[in-house]
Amino acid sequence: MHIDKNRLEKLNKERLPRHQRLLELSMAHLEGQGIDMEDVVKELQAFQMAIPSWALGTGGTRFGRFAGGGEPRDLQEKIADVGVLHALNQSSGAISLHIPWDVPSDFQAIKDLARSYDLVFDAVNSNTFQDQPGQPLSYKFGSLSHISADVRAQAIEHNLEVIKIGEQLGSKALTVWLADGSSFPGQHSFRTAFENTLDSLQSIYKHLPTGWSVFIEYKPYEPNFYSMVIPDWGTSHLLASKLGPQASCLVDLGHHLPNTNIEQIVAILMMEGKLGGFHFNDSKYGDDDLTVGALKPYQLFLIFNELVDDMKNTASRPSWMIDASHNLKDPMEDLLQSIEAILIAYAQALLVDRTKLLEAQQANDATLAQEVLQEAYRTDVRALVAEARRRAGGALSPIVVFRALGIRNTLVKERGSSVTSTGL
Amino acid sequence: MHIDKNRLEKLNKERLPRHQRLLELSMAHLEGQGIDMEDVVKELQAFQMAIPSWALGTGGTRFGRFAGGGEPRDLQEKIADVGVLHALNQSSGAISLHIPWDVPSDFQAIKDLARSYDLVFDAVNSNTFQDQPGQPLSYKFGSLSHISADVRAQAIEHNLEVIKIGEQLGSKALTVWLADGSSFPGQHSFRTAFENTLDSLQSIYKHLPTGWSVFIEYKPYEPNFYSMVIPDWGTSHLLASKLGPQASCLVDLGHHLPNTNIEQIVAILMMEGKLGGFHFNDSKYGDDDLTVGALKPYQLFLIFNELVDDMKNTASRPSWMIDASHNLKDPMEDLLQSIEAILIAYAQALLVDRTKLLEAQQANDATLAQEVLQEAYRTDVRALVAEARRRAGGALSPIVVFRALGIRNTLVKERGSSVTSTGL
Amino acid sequence: MHIDKNRLEKLNKERLPRHQRLLELSMAHLEGQGIDMEDVVKELQAFQMAIPSWALGTGGTRFGRFAGGGEPRDLQEKIADVGVLHALNQSSGAISLHIPWDVPSDFQAIKDLARSYDLVFDAVNSNTFQDQPGQPLSYKFGSLSHISADVRAQAIEHNLEVIKIGEQLGSKALTVWLADGSSFPGQHSFRTAFENTLDSLQSIYKHLPTGWSVFIEYKPYEPNFYSMVIPDWGTSHLLASKLGPQASCLVDLGHHLPNTNIEQIVAILMMEGKLGGFHFNDSKYGDDDLTVGALKPYQLFLIFNELVDDMKNTASRPSWMIDASHNLKDPMEDLLQSIEAILIAYAQALLVDRTKLLEAQQANDATLAQEVLQEAYRTDVRALVAEARRRAGGALSPIVVFRALGIRNTLVKERGSSVTSTGL
Amino acid sequence: MHIDKNRLEKLNKERLPRHQRLLELSMAHLEGQGIDMEDVVKELQAFQMAIPSWALGTGGTRFGRFAGGGEPRDLQEKIADVGVLHALNQSSGAISLHIPWDVPSDFQAIKDLARSYDLVFDAVNSNTFQDQPGQPLSYKFGSLSHISADVRAQAIEHNLEVIKIGEQLGSKALTVWLADGSSFPGQHSFRTAFENTLDSLQSIYKHLPTGWSVFIEYKPYEPNFYSMVIPDWGTSHLLASKLGPQASCLVDLGHHLPNTNIEQIVAILMMEGKLGGFHFNDSKYGDDDLTVGALKPYQLFLIFNELVDDMKNTASRPSWMIDASHNLKDPMEDLLQSIEAILIAYAQALLVDRTKLLEAQQANDATLAQEVLQEAYRTDVRALVAEARRRAGGALSPIVVFRALGIRNTLVKERGSSVTSTGL
Repeated sequence: MHIDKNRLEKLNKERLPRHQRLLELSMAHLEGQGIDMEDVVKELQAFQMAIPSWALGTGGTRFGRFAGGGEPRDLQEKIADVGVLHALNQSSGAISLHIPWDVPSDFQAIKDLARSYDLVFDAVNSNTFQDQPGQPLSYKFGSLSHISADVRAQAIEHNLEVIKIGEQLGSKALTVWLADGSSFPGQHSFRTAFENTLDSLQSIYKHLPTGWSVFIEYKPYEPNFYSMVIPDWGTSHLLASKLGPQASCLVDLGHHLPNTNIEQIVAILMMEGKLGGFHFNDSKYGDDDLTVGALKPYQLFLIFNELVDDMKNTASRPSWMIDASHNLKDPMEDLLQSIEAILIAYAQALLVDRTKLLEAQQANDATLAQEVLQEAYRTDVRALVAEARRRAGGALSPIVVFRALGIRNTLVKERGSSVTSTGL
Repeated sequence: MHIDKNRLEKLNKERLPRHQRLLELSMAHLEGQGIDMEDVVKELQAFQMAIPSWALGTGGTRFGRFAGGGEPRDLQEKIADVGVLHALNQSSGAISLHIPWDVPSDFQAIKDLARSYDLVFDAVNSNTFQDQPGQPLSYKFGSLSHISADVRAQAIEHNLEVIKIGEQLGSKALTVWLADGSSFPGQHSFRTAFENTLDSLQSIYKHLPTGWSVFIEYKPYEPNFYSMVIPDWGTSHLLASKLGPQASCLVDLGHHLPNTNIEQIVAILMMEGKLGGFHFNDSKYGDDDLTVGALKPYQLFLIFNELVDDMKNTASRPSWMIDASHNLKDPMEDLLQSIEAILIAYAQALLVDRTKLLEAQQANDATLAQEVLQEAYRTDVRALVAEARRRAGGALSPIVVFRALGIRNTLVKERGSSVTSTGL
Repeated sequence: MHIDKNRLEKLNKERLPRHQRLLELSMAHLEGQGIDMEDVVKELQAFQMAIPSWALGTGGTRFGRFAGGGEPRDLQEKIADVGVLHALNQSSGAISLHIPWDVPSDFQAIKDLARSYDLVFDAVNSNTFQDQPGQPLSYKFGSLSHISADVRAQAIEHNLEVIKIGEQLGSKALTVWLADGSSFPGQHSFRTAFENTLDSLQSIYKHLPTGWSVFIEYKPYEPNFYSMVIPDWGTSHLLASKLGPQASCLVDLGHHLPNTNIEQIVAILMMEGKLGGFHFNDSKYGDDDLTVGALKPYQLFLIFNELVDDMKNTASRPSWMIDASHNLKDPMEDLLQSIEAILIAYAQALLVDRTKLLEAQQANDATLAQEVLQEAYRTDVRALVAEARRRAGGALSPIVVFRALGIRNTLVKERGSSVTSTGL
Repeated sequence: MHIDKNRLEKLNKERLPRHQRLLELSMAHLEGQGIDMEDVVKELQAFQMAIPSWALGTGGTRFGRFAGGGEPRDLQEKIADVGVLHALNQSSGAISLHIPWDVPSDFQAIKDLARSYDLVFDAVNSNTFQDQPGQPLSYKFGSLSHISADVRAQAIEHNLEVIKIGEQLGSKALTVWLADGSSFPGQHSFRTAFENTLDSLQSIYKHLPTGWSVFIEYKPYEPNFYSMVIPDWGTSHLLASKLGPQASCLVDLGHHLPNTNIEQIVAILMMEGKLGGFHFNDSKYGDDDLTVGALKPYQLFLIFNELVDDMKNTASRPSWMIDASHNLKDPMEDLLQSIEAILIAYAQALLVDRTKLLEAQQANDATLAQEVLQEAYRTDVRALVAEARRRAGGALSPIVVFRALGIRNTLVKERGSSVTSTGL
């Protein structure tokens, strides 16, 4: 479905007086600090987040799944849903495909469809953590790290296939999340598993098209429960270094041991020029895959504080993607909340007075450094985010419009109330 | 299938000379410490562990499931599999049913079948964490704690139904694992959820048959990722206290936050007379549901050290059950390894010189206390465990026999290679 | 030292125009939501936080301590420092003494001094985690839980002494933080340690004056590293229940295992009428004792959301205290930042639209529930907090005034630059 | 003091019959598996562990310290204490000095003294985490990473001084544990801190004598509570790689986030040729610095399993050291228990049937792999360890002899009962 621009504008108009008042408040506040609101709004407008093709459906846990309604039944409908999100917030202008769940049958048609929603194709994702029907060899005991050269060859081949699909869509990167590992001590040799993985990745790397990147994702546990072959940024970085300049690391916020300082990892990877991909979500316990900003908004701000620090100095950006599981909320509302939280954190990070922060750091004035960061964090930037969206043609409040337009109901009517849309 | 006693004995006979030599070694060792091996062997023989009806099939994660072969297709075959385990180790003489996955159609036939394998029915388990086909109201947002009285009534009714089934089988306890909780701040009121749960449990409690118990299980997270209604032993104990003497707590080894001292919880619950159920598994990261003793055998020993301490003073025993997920190993081999690990920990705990330990404690001699515990733990008790099994008619080495008899192959031939046996 | 009211007012006056503009804009924002700013400001003005007598000096770790300057040398100077804080923020109107570090020699003089700063004496804290010079028996292996009745008697006697001191000062509560535990398996019996502790606490309880409370603090580890006698809220609650209505639990934000849902514990304890004391700080890894709000401001808000929910229904308040360690920052600046963070979280919690939240909960609308909470959390409430302070006679920005008045320099001149003020 | 060889032998003689019986039985057991006990005993005899000079005194926490008695008052007495340990277990033949706590005044005398106890000097440790009396610039806000070039220069100079001291003693390595970090977001720039550290380490590196190594230790938190400059193996490895071949990583068992798979880190670092140092201790919660093997003996075994795997292929060994804090136990007894636990884990790892393990891995037979590892782990190897010690001239049971000889009492008489021996 396509959002009716007129209805959107009408809803914006109702909200406009209140918005303008709040925006004035924000402007007054920022001027007092010598910040030009226009600069911030421009940066916010430019920010685009990829939505993965599997995120439009309801997720679940190993204990069960409670279907929502109106979930997309095929790639066309997934693209349409991202199109709705992008129409509402003008910040979701990319889609990231998961292969083999979403292989286009007609590439040109799919590209045309995406273009009609103003969407591009971001990094493509391979899947060697599940067996697909008819697949000759099983990934039960690993894929790129498997003890058997035949299984590794099959997994390499799959990744090359994914690259080919991505090329036809205009993607520029391959994301490898390797679920390989062991659930029991002794099950495999850490060293052999690493060496096999490196060898497999090298086979993939040498087929990377010019201008492409490969992102190496890391995760400490799940689906393996004793060790993962790529458990942490150190291992991801070691592999990416051995592979070469087209390889870099992918940080997923949920893939860390309790209490990890993620913002430091982000800073160090950027310093080394090895931060290629970034998956957003939030969590309290593990890889909970909750709405971004639902649990740790200050950590999100601190991460953006590092990102902004680096983005000043370089034109390159990591591939941003939301990677969450929508078990209870409407997936589209969940994604809208996630992007809102990201834009708020980004806006706050843009407000940080970096000159003053540097002075505090040079004086070892931890009190002042905290004041500077929290001055930005405590600022209500929602009007700035809404203004950026409004100017780009989106909704002042995407969730309010999503509900006011009865989008989910329309989709349920179109698609039915009990569809399973992901391959999980 | 029934194990061929003659083949089992023949295999035992081959292993016997080596076994007897090791047993002598153990005896020599124990005599030096004034321990009568016969006492230990007798206790080991008496120990019986329940196998849950869902544990005979291959488990999975939210990312996928890799089927094994020869998995049981119905309750009869699940009972047969437990029968095989019990024939091999003589320590798995009970089965714990999960309702509605394993509702008997003919109770007398099922009871006769179980008796033919020398099995009894342990605690019955209710399931309100999934929706079943045709179920009027959904548990997506909770069951016994649900905001809607109608959903709560449905969940209460299910538990009463489970009790009725249990009564017909000779069970004496109901295990309630409540998956209810919230994944987002604000989603529900902690207080209302607790009060609704208490109210629901009271409705169930008043229908408990005489001689029955209800076990309240706790878990800090998963499938909900912000809060669980019964997250810890404190909440479980608070509920059990309010319910009355027939209610007690259930400890599952995998249901704790990182670093929790589980043995202390066990000791305190026993002191309060409120330890009713006990689920065994092992884990490194969360509720990993790995083979018992695969990761933290010393913790297992320390827990048994507390259990043995209490078991001296009381005739009552918690309901022991294995609660693991067999994602990679053959489920039956996995269960055999788990029970072996449990018996080893139990035997080691029986060897602890409690008089000397008490002396060390009274002198605050932490060095000596550690020596006493580790003297027991470092002792190789495998011959004692094997001897207890041999005397009871089991296999000296259950796993070796399981493989030698080609049991899995036989089951695959019988049942096929791609069955999904659990309701998960 | 006493703050010069004229200089404070002068500094406020300079800041006033900007403050009033921000306040007006905040008011406009709140009015749009039907909230009366006056109600919020009144609640904020009423909020008073106790400062512990040991918090005015520089803290350290086991690896060392880096002294600050101008630290108070005796109880009189500690009271003076709290007086300065209170003059600046009008929210630190209480002091919590630690015995034996701060035993007054002349009670009347000390009370007069406190009154001159408009301070009252909050809960008194006993200390049986250190040995004091000349103390007959050592607490190396415990105090209230000690295996020796003589050591227990000494520790009980100390607590009774602390109560007597508290009575003379007008305190109404005794806080017991029991550092007892074990660092090695077997070192003591969990059960004996619990029973001894209960027995000791009962001996203290029966001497509690009318109108007094005793708060039982819990902590999972440190200074003992295998088990603590009171490791969690469940144990604290079990003890408090056995003791009687004058006993309740004390929650310290830093005393939890990784990922614990503290706001749920707070809600359940309030529901049971057993939340007596509350220690504020922040942490990333363990009991880090950092500035409140420095790491997890959203968690702080969620906790206040529970507190506010309960405070509507009851006149009683927990004893609030800051319990942090100022290793790097100026302790007084650190305390000012902590109280600011607390007031901000409190103000945000007061803004939560509870009617709408309840509606969302009744509809299981997790998206909306999050919107409601974050609507409040994302609001910039700093002008409200400043206004409450201004009306009470405090500084619009306490830290700015603290620095502008050169308070630390004055104190260094008075007291020297290398004083150790705590008993740690 | 020197151990009386005659008394030691007499005590061994009393224990000998029991020892020989257990040894014979162990041999029988091993022969059944085709293992030659002599090979194992030889490896055990060769294993030598360094004792740090600060480990002979009682440690403490930030909440206090409870002195033991008879602690060494100077470097001579520390060497004497290590000499006693080595006489008892013949496995503690090295001492690791901490500068500036233990700077020898007369190098030749100290070397002669060490030689008289058959001790060599292992890696030397620098200390820039504390300020020493008279030190011009403070390390309160860092040392090698400090924002000020002057502070960095001072810290570099100290490390060069430590190398010079080490050279005179025959040490071959410098251990750098950098406590630098930040306790508050914004306090310093992650990037600047890393770059300064790298620069400082390069200045030290270029002065490393030929044949020397520098070990880069990592730690996730404490004494800084928001970030450490070298928090994990990834950062340590990045620095060591940039420095060059004489730099490598140091793994301290207690310096990891909850649930980290340490054995995997060990394997990967060995694969990369970058495992230089190894600090042993045990912990449940954080850097608890408890007796090795007191909490997680199976993890210790799994780590040794990796070490042994690598030690087959290379002659080089990491620098082994015990790094624990003896808060409650007699430090010398604690060290004896630690070394016993290490030797047991080492012996068990030597028993692993690596051919069978490899077969299991090649067949993805996780059940069998676990059987192979646990076959070794469950074997009672204490008689082998005792035999290795006996042959080397040590005590069959070092702790029993330590107590039987009344060593602590003698030391208390010599040195008094309230000495503080460490610089902490």
